[in-house]
Order: sequence, then C-alpha cells, then structure tokens
Amino acid sequence: MTAVLEFGGEYLVVTTDMLHQKTDFPDTMTPWQIGWMAAAVNFSDIAAMGGQPLGLLAAVGYPQNMSLEDAGEIARGMRDCAEFCGTSVIGGDVDSHEELTVTGTAMGRVSKEELLTRKGAKPGDLLCVTATLGGAGAALEAYLKNMNVDDDFMKPLLEPVPRIAEGRKLAKSGAVTSAMDTSDGLALSLYDLASVNKVGFVLKEESLPIDKRVFEIATSKKEALEMALYSGGDFELLVTVSKDKFKALQAESYLTVVGEVVDIDGAISLIGKDGANFAIDRKGYLHMGTSDQI
Amino acid sequence: MTAVLEFGGEYLVVTTDMLHQKTDFPDTMTPWQIGWMAAAVNFSDIAAMGGQPLGLLAAVGYPQNMSLEDAGEIARGMRDCAEFCGTSVIGGDVDSHEELTVTGTAMGRVSKEELLTRKGAKPGDLLCVTATLGGAGAALEAYLKNMNVDDDFMKPLLEPVPRIAEGRKLAKSGAVTSAMDTSDGLALSLYDLASVNKVGFVLKEESLPIDKRVFEIATSKKEALEMALYSGGDFELLVTVSKDKFKALQAESYLTVVGEVVDIDGAISLIGKDGANFAIDRKGYLHMGTSDQI
Repeated sequence: MTAVLEFGGEYLVVTTDMLHQKTDFPDTMTPWQIGWMAAAVNFSDIAAMGGQPLGLLAAVGYPQNMSLEDAGEIARGMRDCAEFCGTSVIGGDVDSHEELTVTGTAMGRVSKEELLTRKGAKPGDLLCVTATLGGAGAALEAYLKNMNVDDDFMKPLLEPVPRIAEGRKLAKSGAVTSAMDTSDGLALSLYDLASVNKVGFVLKEESLPIDKRVFEIATSKKEALEMALYSGGDFELLVTVSKDKFKALQAESYLTVVGEVVDIDGAISLIGKDGANFAIDRKGYLHMGTSDQI
Repeated sequence: MTAVLEFGGEYLVVTTDMLHQKTDFPDTMTPWQIGWMAAAVNFSDIAAMGGQPLGLLAAVGYPQNMSLEDAGEIARGMRDCAEFCGTSVIGGDVDSHEELTVTGTAMGRVSKEELLTRKGAKPGDLLCVTATLGGAGAALEAYLKNMNVDDDFMKPLLEPVPRIAEGRKLAKSGAVTSAMDTSDGLALSLYDLASVNKVGFVLKEESLPIDKRVFEIATSKKEALEMALYSGGDFELLVTVSKDKFKALQAESYLTVVGEVVDIDGAISLIGKDGANFAIDRKGYLHMGTSDQI
C-alpha cells in the first residue's frame, strides 16, 4: 500500500515492502538480483503513482553465514536499481537475522495535478498496459520445470524494471484516469481496479502484448493465454486512459490498448480471437519458492 | 540512520529500523508492546532531529502460528505509539515470516532553521539529557535476574517514550548545537557525539539524573553509576546547548545539565562526587534476548 502525504504544496508518496529468503528469493537469484528486487518492488509502486523517486531506505537482516561479498552485492543491487530510477539509497538499518530479510522503503514526489491513483476509471476509457505480459510467469515456469534457459530469459522474473519513466510520462499527460502495477498478475489487478471503480473491463485477446517467452514455454495457445492473464511478477503499469486524450499520449509512450472500461460492476471478460466471450477469473498463480507478491 | 531530504522548502526526515523476535523482543513483551517498540525506535530518531512526525509505515512478517488477536495487538501498539507522537500509521505491508519481524519507517518534517543534527557541538556548550538515565537498563537487569518487579518498573525497557514534544521544543529554541538519542546508552552516545564534533565531554556524577529503578537493582553505588553510564534502551535525548541560550530553554523543558563540552578530541570523563576524575569507557551493555539496539 502506498501512502500519500501532502507536503510543501505537492504530494509525497511512500511505500514499504518486506521480502525474505524463503518466499521471495528463488535460489537461482544472485545477491545482486535480491538487492535489485527489494528496491524494484517499491519503486514500481512509486511509478504507479506517477512519482519522481526521492530515495530508498533499506533495512536488511543478514543471516550470520552470509559472506561480506554477498552482503555487498545485495547493497550494490539496491544501489543500481535506485540509480536506474534516478535516485539513490539514502539510509537504512543493518542487523543480523536468521533468514535473509530485506525491507525497502521508497519515497517519491508528484504534483497534486499529476498524482495517479487506482480510482477514476470511467466507462468508455481505454485499458492499456506497458511492455508485455507473462514474461515473469514464463521465467518462473522455466525455473520450476528446471528448463535450460539463458539469463536473459529469466530477467523479467529476477530483475523486474520499475516503470518510473513511463509512470512520469503518463502522469504528465493528464490522460490517465486510474493506474496500478501488475505485480499480482493482470487478472487480479483488473479485479482490484474494477472493485475500486465499480466498473468492468472487456479485453481483446488479439490485442494482448504477450511476451515472446510465453510462447516458448506454453504447450498450447490456451496455456499461453492463461500465463498472460494469471501469472504475476511482471511489474508493468496497467492504466485506464480517456479516449479523447489517448492519441497524444500514445505518440510518446509504448502503451498497448488491451481493452475498454465498461459500465458493468465487476464484469471482466475477454473476447477471444474467434469472437467468443470468456470471463476472466479472479485468480493468480502463487508458486512455492517465490513471493506471494508475484 | 536518519535521512534528510529537502522538500518544498523544508526538510523531510525519514528513518527505518528492522526489529525481530529473537534479538529485540524479550519474551516478557506483550504483542502491544512489540508494536509500540517498533514504532517508538523510529519516532525517537525523528525526535532527535527535531521533527514533527508525518506518519509511520509498518512492514510486518507474522509467524504462521501467531493468533489474529496477537497480530491485532501489535497493530494497536504501533497505532497507539503513532498517536502519542501526534500522527498515525499511514501504510504498510503484511506477510508471513518464520520469525516475527517488524520494520517501521517513520517520517517527519522540520524547517531548515530547526533541524537538529549530531554535528555542531562546541567547547563551552552545556551537555544535557531529557528525563532520567538507566531506567531501561535496570528493567533489563531485573528481567535477566528473574526478579519480581511490577509492570511499571519494566516500562522504560518495554515501552520507551519517543521524546517528540521535547525534540520539537529543543528544535524551536535555536539553542541546541547537536542532538541524538541515547538508545545505545549514554557512554556510546557520548563517543558518537565526540567523534562527529571532534570534542570531548566532562560530566559530573552529582548531576546525573539516575532513574530510581537503578538504585533498587544495583548492589553498590559503583554498579548504579555503571548502569546509568553504560546500559542502553533509554531513548532519551542527549543534546548540547549554547550556554548563553540555556536559561530561556530550561524554563520550558525538563533538561538536566550533566556536563560540558571540552576542547579535547575524544576525551570523555566524569568528575566523581569525591572530586576524582574518571575516564568514561567506550562500551555499552548488549544482552542476549534484547536488541543490539538497546
């Protein structure tokens, strides 16, 4: 949950997230990736509010058997992610802990006019998403099935990219009516947005920007579609946009229109390539060895 | 470590602290006290900067065998401490964790003129402390020795009071040249202040406001003095004050003058009641079952 505070005539947005070894860091993750991830999950929340990052605080509980080198790599991962987001690690707390535990707290600023929130989607708005869907889910599947894939294949899962630059563009555009990230998967995110706004969504299968990794892993078209809809960990931005303001926005962003907001509270459906209409279920994949956040 | 950010013409101060069951919560602590403590350690840092609290974020990893009632009590403890400090819990993250782990992040605001920092003590300044010394240490000793004491006796250890109101008064006074809290014990705090400011301190034994609990626990005068100097967990404010501005400040605060800043880098000594001069050692008590913070 991101908190919003009025401060000096603008908004300060702050979010915190605790990650730990057993449920958030698959054993294939490097210490650098653990640091990156702990920062990225927080900056993604700042991105979804349209915030300009102000800094990251990190409280880390290191297990006693961790080498200084690994501890340094975790710190470097956090620093690199903060720098990617245009800011830095500004403070923190270090302690020893039985299980590696990292709590990041990210702060950002955003003007009152530009703040993005989950509330505001209206029937007729376009539903859009940044980049692609299912990449992290496909990587998770490859990991769980012990498949032989390269590092690049695993990146969406292990090194998610906070969409700070995209969030700032969307915030400045004045065209976005609601926004959140897709870390829980597209389907659960849609249900969250629908519930807050008392609306529904109709998506088009042919419009979904499914990550190419999904097609390498899925054994059928149905499985590929399920992965795009229900797998988590992508950290893309899911936004609704006023139809009349969309053109100007699309020119300078890489949003994909995946559907439309409709005036039926909680109804979330997909029009298949054959024209048939399916209900999208309220579910997300939660696998052992990875976060309940993803 | 507290981070200071310029924002909207004033300073935003932010601090984070991770506490966990095995090293920070003695088994005599109630869930409510665990919540209070996790908030208090962070607000104490805000107090030491002269900050007006803006809110608390809490990331909590609950063990799976914890009852909902206990989890609610932890939340209530955090809320009560935040309210005592004039603010509220504004957000957070909840997860399950093998060991109970609570990371609090507190934010505060303070004008540029009023920010208190560790740097600025000058030879000739008065060294002062809020309230009393050694109360938490005496309570810890009673706990470790399994002594029969009442709840009130244990309060300094289990329910430390963040000195927010005192910090604000000190900040507004313009008289304070440096400040920090005494959570690591008076001696270690003095060494920190001395090191940052390249000064020394001379304290007077007869001036030390030793908590009455200390005299109930200590078996000798020497032990009482040691407890006041070296035990941690008190969360009082330790400040240096310009001599010429002290009178106006003392009228509206309950500071005790315990000594003076001297121009000898790193020399920290105590003039005993008999007039003899002792060096105060660079040490603090760190007991098993309690935090390395206290």
